[in-house]
Amino acid sequence: MTYCAAIRLKDGMIFASDTRTNAGVDHISTFRKLYQYGVEGERFIVLQTAGSLATSQAVFTKIQHDIDQRQESNLHTVATLFDAAQMVGECMRNVMNHAKMIANDPSSSTFTSSFMLGGQIKGQLPELYMIYPEGNCIRATQDTPFFQLGESKYGKPILDRAVTYDTDVKHAMRALMLSFDSTIHSNLSVGMPIDVVIYQNDSLILPKGRRIDEHDAYFNILRYEWAEAIRRSLIELPACPDDYWT
Amino acid sequence: MTYCAAIRLKDGMIFASDTRTNAGVDHISTFRKLYQYGVEGERFIVLQTAGSLATSQAVFTKIQHDIDQRQESNLHTVATLFDAAQMVGECMRNVMNHAKMIANDPSSSTFTSSFMLGGQIKGQLPELYMIYPEGNCIRATQDTPFFQLGESKYGKPILDRAVTYDTDVKHAMRALMLSFDSTIHSNLSVGMPIDVVIYQNDSLILPKGRRIDEHDAYFNILRYEWAEAIRRSLIELPACPDDYWT
Repeated sequence: MTYCAAIRLKDGMIFASDTRTNAGVDHISTFRKLYQYGVEGERFIVLQTAGSLATSQAVFTKIQHDIDQRQESNLHTVATLFDAAQMVGECMRNVMNHAKMIANDPSSSTFTSSFMLGGQIKGQLPELYMIYPEGNCIRATQDTPFFQLGESKYGKPILDRAVTYDTDVKHAMRALMLSFDSTIHSNLSVGMPIDVVIYQNDSLILPKGRRIDEHDAYFNILRYEWAEAIRRSLIELPACPDDYWT
Repeated sequence: MTYCAAIRLKDGMIFASDTRTNAGVDHISTFRKLYQYGVEGERFIVLQTAGSLATSQAVFTKIQHDIDQRQESNLHTVATLFDAAQMVGECMRNVMNHAKMIANDPSSSTFTSSFMLGGQIKGQLPELYMIYPEGNCIRATQDTPFFQLGESKYGKPILDRAVTYDTDVKHAMRALMLSFDSTIHSNLSVGMPIDVVIYQNDSLILPKGRRIDEHDAYFNILRYEWAEAIRRSLIELPACPDDYWT
């Protein structure tokens, strides 16, 4: 499986994806599932994926190819992020339909992928889209500032508790890293390293992004201090009254 | 959906089940999904369920009927908890197979249920079983002291962090209530009230159990103080270094 999350805040955006892929439990590998596109000062786009690695890689390859070949419509030329999300959705549908046709299995879900696309184009608002396997998409709003893909349930409570649209970017980053920590702790199919990109709204700078591995000092301090805080906080909570036993 | 969890500790056992059932989002009801059986001073058994309510209720009805009719083999007469788990598994398979036959759909998963069975019989160790839809079962061990059914992922991280076989019962109870709090917070299909039974090992007392609703003072203090503790602890964590932004 995979765990990806992306948050669109008042002041910035954060994108994070794990890198573990597995077919069963004995074929585990590391693959990048987060890619960046853009033109410094003009547009910044992050694309994340979960699902069939073959489908996802074919989509990434096609998108990069279109940029390299300067196709008339590509991620570096589309007018809006909505158009970009539509383009990715259509590309994904084409890849999936082709795979199903070759496999002669039109109802197969083996080739299913999902994507998230976020970023900003000059003169427009920062946006974040969830692109469904059907190819359509929804946009993050102030009410719903984050999306998740893959093994999303373990890490959802901490985001639900800590992240709103107005949350400070560095604070949301803490919650997001703990969301990954909880997921990795509870589910073998999600694993380090984690690819992270933090974007400051309206900067139109293309951040290098960071790969957080098991030696990352910040991540390790966070997970250690959080484990300690949880342990301490739990002990300080009141014990259940005796009449709960009877 | 449903969320059930049961923990087998050195000194006691805790069983908790929510009571929400839903068919779609517009047919939501409250049903008990945790039942107790036993003979004071001789045996104590708790049975929890998730899945098809029709299958689960049929199983509960059959089990109670066998006890009432003093069938030779029933939950009050079986020699071991393993036998009890086998009996429940077989009863569940019979109900499911009958439902599939009537529906003329042998491969249907509509009628699928799962159960957990735990307790103690005099002179034997306390035990906890997870009974799969196939009718077979596994037993909780010192390495794996808790089982969950239904919407288990949201509430697994806090149990993974806080509960081992040697954990104090009241402490495990805190973690279990927070596990429910996180799940209810993040998933609409799990809801109050929560049925809870706490058992002190070797007491062979049949606890009345407790139904925790939204007015429960202890649960409300826990969820409030926990939310505060999470908020405070998050703020106290170090902020990510500036070079994570670039």
